[in-house]
Amino acid sequence: MPSPIEFWFDFSSPYSYLASEQIEEIAARHGRTVAFKPTLLGVIFKTTGGVPLTELVPPKSRYFVLDFERSARFAGVPFRQPSEFPIPTVNAARSLLWLQQHDAAMALRFLHAAFRAYFAHDRNIGEPGVLGALAAEIGADPVALARGAQEPATKDRLKALVDESIARGVFGAPTIFVDGEMFWGHDRLPQVERWLATGPF
Amino acid sequence: MPSPIEFWFDFSSPYSYLASEQIEEIAARHGRTVAFKPTLLGVIFKTTGGVPLTELVPPKSRYFVLDFERSARFAGVPFRQPSEFPIPTVNAARSLLWLQQHDAAMALRFLHAAFRAYFAHDRNIGEPGVLGALAAEIGADPVALARGAQEPATKDRLKALVDESIARGVFGAPTIFVDGEMFWGHDRLPQVERWLATGPF
Repeated sequence: MPSPIEFWFDFSSPYSYLASEQIEEIAARHGRTVAFKPTLLGVIFKTTGGVPLTELVPPKSRYFVLDFERSARFAGVPFRQPSEFPIPTVNAARSLLWLQQHDAAMALRFLHAAFRAYFAHDRNIGEPGVLGALAAEIGADPVALARGAQEPATKDRLKALVDESIARGVFGAPTIFVDGEMFWGHDRLPQVERWLATGPF
Repeated sequence: MPSPIEFWFDFSSPYSYLASEQIEEIAARHGRTVAFKPTLLGVIFKTTGGVPLTELVPPKSRYFVLDFERSARFAGVPFRQPSEFPIPTVNAARSLLWLQQHDAAMALRFLHAAFRAYFAHDRNIGEPGVLGALAAEIGADPVALARGAQEPATKDRLKALVDESIARGVFGAPTIFVDGEMFWGHDRLPQVERWLATGPF
């Protein structure tokens, strides 16, 4: 049984969103599953000196918004630049982790619903109220989810994942590991697919 | 007659090298030509706060060398990480510009020979001796080329191109303009090709 593809991401990363819409189909074509692992770019950037894409100097920040939109059209994924960007994603990440412990299918629905809410429908998933509404929309119990996200075990799990991502050299998102090989960026999906098809190249 | 594809690059940019090996074929498939325009990332980075890829913190710098090599294999382009990197490319850029004024075909041979010398054969094209040897290898007059590269008109032309690249928002290399639309990075060639095939998308 080949190992799952590890998909490390942050809910406020537009390229993570684009890749999240494609990675499961790529994995399935090659008999793999995907392990979705949230991390926090805000914490990572403190250790790597990274800067959010839109906090760069104007020629870069302008280009990146253009590139988000064009890359989304290129990939055939609905996208709308959120009016608040970036946002704190710790609550969304904890919610996902709690669901992953209790209902794997529900967790997947939550992941895609949260990404789409933020990057296609401009809903601020940093807000507890929006997360509660999303829970209801996918058939989860909003109260249980909000409580579960605040459990110490959930918080510890996110902290452990952030630490692991830093220890393994993750400096941006999405970062994808296939059999230990690291690929950074939505634009590396063609290389991920080649690796899955042929093995190391 | 459709306008040429503008290919802005720096001779010490590995992703520029990879793209330089593919852009003419892409252009030809869509009835276009390529205008190769050297710029200087060292000057650009001073205005945009950019940092050479290998001067980043270790997790990033390690990843980028891995990515140069893997992206080269993915593209089928010979690549060997140069032992000195990055290097000053002002003389190589001026040599190219002088040749472009005098012999377009020779200029193209020089461009590819210089990129390959540096990124496939670890020859430091920042050295005048290496540029002289390259000139001889492609059938150019090394003395005339070295003199031409130092002419005030050649220096002015490079300065004007660097200024133009900054004015147009170039912050990294390669940067490709198709009918005014900006694409940054070797990994955007698939989007460049889509644009050439379909127009704006």
